[in-house]
This record gives sequence, C-alpha cells and structure tokens, in this order.
Amino acid sequence: MIKQPYLLFLGDAPDRLAAKVAQGICDWRPEAAIGQYRMAGCAADMRIPDMSIAEAREAGAETLVIGVANRGGVIADSWMAVLEEALAAGLDIASGLHNLLTDEPRLVRAARKFGRELHDVRTPVIDYPIANGRKRTGRRCLAVGTDVSVGKMYVSLAMQREMLRRGLKASFRATGQTGIFVAGEGVPLDAVVADFMAGAVEWLSPDNDDDHWDFIEGQGSLFHASYSGVTLALVHGGQPDAIILCHEPGRPHMRGLPDYQLPELERLCEVVLTMAHIVNPACRAVGVSVNTSRFSQEEARQCLQDAEARTGLPATDPIRFGAEALVDALLSESNGETLR
Amino acid sequence: MIKQPYLLFLGDAPDRLAAKVAQGICDWRPEAAIGQYRMAGCAADMRIPDMSIAEAREAGAETLVIGVANRGGVIADSWMAVLEEALAAGLDIASGLHNLLTDEPRLVRAARKFGRELHDVRTPVIDYPIANGRKRTGRRCLAVGTDVSVGKMYVSLAMQREMLRRGLKASFRATGQTGIFVAGEGVPLDAVVADFMAGAVEWLSPDNDDDHWDFIEGQGSLFHASYSGVTLALVHGGQPDAIILCHEPGRPHMRGLPDYQLPELERLCEVVLTMAHIVNPACRAVGVSVNTSRFSQEEARQCLQDAEARTGLPATDPIRFGAEALVDALLSESNGETLR
Repeated sequence: MIKQPYLLFLGDAPDRLAAKVAQGICDWRPEAAIGQYRMAGCAADMRIPDMSIAEAREAGAETLVIGVANRGGVIADSWMAVLEEALAAGLDIASGLHNLLTDEPRLVRAARKFGRELHDVRTPVIDYPIANGRKRTGRRCLAVGTDVSVGKMYVSLAMQREMLRRGLKASFRATGQTGIFVAGEGVPLDAVVADFMAGAVEWLSPDNDDDHWDFIEGQGSLFHASYSGVTLALVHGGQPDAIILCHEPGRPHMRGLPDYQLPELERLCEVVLTMAHIVNPACRAVGVSVNTSRFSQEEARQCLQDAEARTGLPATDPIRFGAEALVDALLSESNGETLR
Repeated sequence: MIKQPYLLFLGDAPDRLAAKVAQGICDWRPEAAIGQYRMAGCAADMRIPDMSIAEAREAGAETLVIGVANRGGVIADSWMAVLEEALAAGLDIASGLHNLLTDEPRLVRAARKFGRELHDVRTPVIDYPIANGRKRTGRRCLAVGTDVSVGKMYVSLAMQREMLRRGLKASFRATGQTGIFVAGEGVPLDAVVADFMAGAVEWLSPDNDDDHWDFIEGQGSLFHASYSGVTLALVHGGQPDAIILCHEPGRPHMRGLPDYQLPELERLCEVVLTMAHIVNPACRAVGVSVNTSRFSQEEARQCLQDAEARTGLPATDPIRFGAEALVDALLSESNGETLR
C-alpha cells in the first residue's frame, strides 16, 4: 500500500506528455495530489500548488511520487538530491520507472537511515499463487479493448466513481502503473511471470459482498499480438460478470502493429464473451466506452450511435459524456436474471 | 545452447515418476543420453549404462543433466559433492529445478574455477523483445490441448521425428523444461515476464526456409483458467499455419481445476482457430493427437474414431500408433491451397 496523499515530482519534464502519470493521478485522485515539485526547466504543470519538500511534508504529504517518464525511463542523477531530501524529511518514494529505486544505493541508504519505504510499482513484490479458477463472491466488471490504450483504465475509474456517488459498493482494482498510484495498491500485471498472471488477478479481486463490484483495470487486447496473453489472464483470472467494450474510432492500425487492423466492436464482443464464458457462463457485455477525444461533438455522437448499432449496447464516452449510462446498464443487467 | 551428449543424474530418485525429465530425454534423444548416474537409494532406472563421472567424461559426455525432481524441487545437499566432481571433470551442469544452480556458491565457485557452465533452464537468460506480429517465412505447427499435460510435447516431437525420417526440414522449438533438454535450447515460457511472452515465441521461431516446419511445443490450454494466457501468447507469437488438437479422454475434470470440465474437441478447434486467425487467417487444424495410454487397444481405436467423428480430422495416438497420419495430413494440407 502506497501511503496517500502524494507530492507529485515532475522533475524536469520536457512537456505535458512526459508527466502523464502525474496527470492520471490528478484526474482520478485529485484529493491525493496535494502538491507538485518542479525543477528548473520543467515544462509540465498540473495546476496544483508548487511545494518544496518541507512545505509538502508540512501539508501532510506521505509519499513523493515520480510522476514523470524521461527518456529511457531512468532515474536522473539531477533528481537524486531532491529524492534524498524527501526521504530525510519523512516522505516515502514511489516510482514506476524502468530502473528501480531499490537499485540506487544512495536511495536505499537514505531510506534505511530515515525509516522510509521505496515503492517500485513496476516490480511485483508478492509471490502470487497459481490461479485456482474457483468462483468468488461479489461481482466483477472488466474493460476490454479493440486495441491497447483505448481508455480501459479511464472507463473503469469513471464507473467506480459513479457507483460511489450513488452510494453503492465498488472498488477499482489496478493492474498498471498509473492505476496503482491512483488506487495506492494493485498488481503490475505486465511484469508478472507468465505462470502466475491469472493467479495475480484472482489475488487482486478476492471474495467480496454480493452487492460489491470490482472494476478491474484492463491491459492489452485479445486482438493485440504482443499482449493478448496478458488480456486473457485478466479474463480468466478476473472471472468478470460484466464486460465493457472499449474502442477508439479512426485508428489506422493496431498500436505498434502496422500490419494489423482493429477488429470491429461486434467481433470483439463475440470473442471476449467466448473466452469469458469458459470461466463464467453468465458473463455479459453491458456497454461500450468510446474514446472520442479527437472528434467534434457531433462526430462524437455519431461514433456512439455507430457503436450502439453494431453491438446493441449503450455506448458513451465516459470522459466527455459521463459514465452514468454504463453504470445504469451494469445495474439493470445485474438486477435481472442474466447476471446471477 | 546446452552441449550434448548428457550424463543423466538421477540422484536418489524415490521412484520412476521423480525422474520423468530424464525419461523424456531418453524417449526423444536417446543418442544424447549416454549414461546415468545413480546414488544409493535411487529407485529409477533409464536402462542406459550406469557411469561414474570419470567414465561419463571418458565416453564423451559434455553436460550432467539433473533429470530428477525431488520434493520441493531443490538441489539436495547430498548431491553437492557429485556436482562439484562433475564440474572438476569438465562437465557443464544443467537443471530445471526451482532453486537455481547459480544460487549455490559452491557450484558457482567450482564452475568458475574449472571454466564450466551452469544452465538453469527454468530461468530466461535472454531479454526477449516485445512481439511485433510480423509475418515470418517458413511454416509453423502448434499443438494445443483440451487440458494441460495431454501430450502436446510428445506429438510435436513425434511429428518432427517423422518429418526428418522423410528427409524433410523440421525443427522442434522447446518452450518447457524437458523440451529444452531434448532440443538443447529453447524458451522457458512459463517463467517469462508477461509483456514478453509472445515476443519470446517470435524469437524462438524466426524466419526460415519456405519448406521448413517449426513444431512449437505447446503450454497450458486456452480452456485452463490458470495458464490460458501463456497458451494465447503461443498462438499469437507462434503464428501457426497448422494446429494439432490434443486430448486425453476420460479425465474427470481439468487438471488442478476440480470445478471445470474439459471442452469437447470440436469446441477447442473452434476457439483456437478463432484466436489463431487474428494473426494468421490461413491457419487450419490438421489433425488430432489422442493420449490413449489408459485404454485397451480396442478402446483406443474407439477413442480415435470418436475424435475423427467430432472434428472431421485424422486422429491418432502418436506414441501408440505413430505420427505418420498427422504428418500426412500436415503435408497434404500444406501442398494444397489452404495453407498459403
């Protein structure tokens, strides 16, 4: 568990995109981001208070989160003095960079000296079990995509937020770096050893109240040759009762795979249900989440109509139009006979 | 690459089953197993010459293979003196046990001193790439199962052997421990980090001659909740042109999953082709491999007839009746229009 609230370390981020981890945290846990720390040359700005280490500690920050990815995903030498200062001031540090905090002798020494924790969220720290496939109590919703990076995390977070707003029981179960920072915990699924992927997902989403929904963060796509195995482990380890189909119209090809076209939404629906029914014959697709960010308002509505016509399911862009329609669909399905 | 031939170390194996890795090597690369080393109390016997370390070296052995799995998969203290003697005599050591040769200071020291190699075949030693999904030259055959441990490795090895017997070009591509010992190289797929599984399979089966067949060792099952993600990485990273369906009739449930029934063969065929066509629309199922070892001859023939009736494909038990029928089916498919 990564202690919140956070001081978001933006370092010398050359642009906004380099700080997208920080952006995700601000979008989804604004209450957990009490300040930002920017170094000389930082071109990113989360529009939250700039704070020194001492000010952040004073304001109650518990963890400095490295919310920036620089070239190569490494911990820059120029950051080191700031990170040591943070540990000395009583902050833990959390990072999703490729090279590890725990591989930096200066940080390891300082953390030990000041009794602080170093969280490398890309590295599994638990020995996950082999999946046992047993039916668990509680309900589960998994977002799956026609491609990678089509908004699976965002729709899951938007639906969970809407559930909580309605006073219902819901958890977001993180499987990726940004998601883990948002939730404060989770499984870095793409770094888990193959044999334990499905078991890690079972571990992440244990038995729960009958009226509790887990919103499990999706990864990859069943149609993406590079990562489809990770996705299937989520489908089989997650045992979803409900599937949200995610899509971004207009992509010329699968991301990173110029030889591959995205599947149609109805094809994704058919294939994911085929695979999901192996572990849960009652699983249903309940709605479609469409990333319409590069379209005009009118085009966006057209995209949603197209998605609804293809699938017969309610479609929305949860960022643009809210997640109410998807939560309505989820609850109406689950109150009926179909989900139990 | 693990240097052959091998001295098979059976240690103090309590029974034949504990030496199943050695058995697999003897079954499929008898020419690579020039002797066995048995300690006091060893109840396994490969029926190959018993040799001392010195005798094995004299006979040309290059590597001592730990062909036994004891409780907990650990390297026993009682073995240590023998293993050090082997290194001193000029043998490398290879092991598929859970605890690693390279974690044993005595062995690491001796290997360094005598210039020998320690191979832990469960541990990936290569930084595999992310899969790129590009079409590769040459042809590929993948065995998939209704369950785990239904003979996928055996049918692949049997078909490769039959191809070579006919003077055709064929390689066996190992993805598991025993397979790696048999081939002398391969990818320990179940130990690869999630994001790199499909890339590891692409790496394992690179471009080749147009008339060359790779027989890729299968793992898990698309229907097995614990390991299905590994299987899908094989289907998408392997880009098979041909699928062999594998089945063992009569199992009461999926192995390790008492709540799950095995799928029917025709259902496996449908699902695996759905997933395979994502990366190779020309992929075809060409035959069925049935493990009939617990049935009488007559029952076995009945099993094959049943498999043929269900799938419309030729079926055989490659151990009992040979793999000719499957190779015939593979070649007749690939000479026609369907595979190119």
